[in-house]
Amino acid sequence: MAKYPADLITLIAHLRKLPGVGSKTAERFAFHLLGWPEVQLGGLADLVGSIKDKIKYCPECGCLSEEVTCFFCSQEQRNSGQLCLIATPKDVYAIEETRIYQGLYHVLGGLLSPIQGCTPEQLGIEKIKNRVIQHEIKEIIIALDSTLEGDATALYLKEQIHSWGIRASRLAFGLPMGSTLDFIDGGTLTRALMGRQFL
Amino acid sequence: MAKYPADLITLIAHLRKLPGVGSKTAERFAFHLLGWPEVQLGGLADLVGSIKDKIKYCPECGCLSEEVTCFFCSQEQRNSGQLCLIATPKDVYAIEETRIYQGLYHVLGGLLSPIQGCTPEQLGIEKIKNRVIQHEIKEIIIALDSTLEGDATALYLKEQIHSWGIRASRLAFGLPMGSTLDFIDGGTLTRALMGRQFL
Repeated sequence: MAKYPADLITLIAHLRKLPGVGSKTAERFAFHLLGWPEVQLGGLADLVGSIKDKIKYCPECGCLSEEVTCFFCSQEQRNSGQLCLIATPKDVYAIEETRIYQGLYHVLGGLLSPIQGCTPEQLGIEKIKNRVIQHEIKEIIIALDSTLEGDATALYLKEQIHSWGIRASRLAFGLPMGSTLDFIDGGTLTRALMGRQFL
Repeated sequence: MAKYPADLITLIAHLRKLPGVGSKTAERFAFHLLGWPEVQLGGLADLVGSIKDKIKYCPECGCLSEEVTCFFCSQEQRNSGQLCLIATPKDVYAIEETRIYQGLYHVLGGLLSPIQGCTPEQLGIEKIKNRVIQHEIKEIIIALDSTLEGDATALYLKEQIHSWGIRASRLAFGLPMGSTLDFIDGGTLTRALMGRQFL
């Protein structure tokens, strides 16, 4: 049986580790890379090898940054009465794109998950509490995924936040924009009904 | 407006060049890579940077190889009465998986396409002719895509091959396995009808 050259197999194995990439896609990527010009491959190789050194995390909020404090923490005019809790640094860009949030952020770094070994201790509750006091936060917005892990984490956080005497809120659940009722799943429809807004 | 760090943007731009990867997927890949352990990133970077040097092309047939002559050309027992023409080195593995072809291969390196600038001269007809004489080829199997470019290239190759007094054949067109007539497109059904086999 004919097999790919060994180095190509190793490259394919590496590419398979990317999210949503199966063996067929990884093979396609690898053969595509073979067709790239040398200089472009070199550029990608350099970036992949050095990206961890180049990208820093803000010690304050955990967002990505190039300088010591990040874009969000360094903006004085941001309303510090609100703190938005997010799971990963990527989520901040999705929320920023809405252009309706002007408060501070805090990256949890993960969601509670016994399987993946993420425990309440790893959420850094003490650090959130310190920031709440420091910035005189009045409301904490929990912006987590609508998944089992997201729900569990939100429930845990809610209890903690309430114990500090602060208001906690969570992103609304309901119909996504442009959706039609006959294509919506039962779970979403249940949440949309439960969270119905009086007009 | 918040923006990703500059190096992350460059990495995303590189990843976007992979086939079928849009900006959303490239962002997802980049953030995933940020979470990889350093040693794994180093491994991928090394492979990407050196893959072009490590993978060689067989000077005889154009397939991928690690040694001087490739796996296919070095197998004496392969029936050299047949030569299979393929567009890219990747195609050989798809054909090998069927386990019903035992002849030689020849990689064209592309399909005729005025837009992409691939002309008849670039198909290396002379080289194919030399191999036909050298290996006493009786039949040339044209295993090209079922696309406009594939059809044009097959037509051109057929004329050349016939002028050498050799039989030319092309992969059959018809219903893919497991398909049902009500989901098949008109073009495929037309080809399946035209190529119907008497039982």
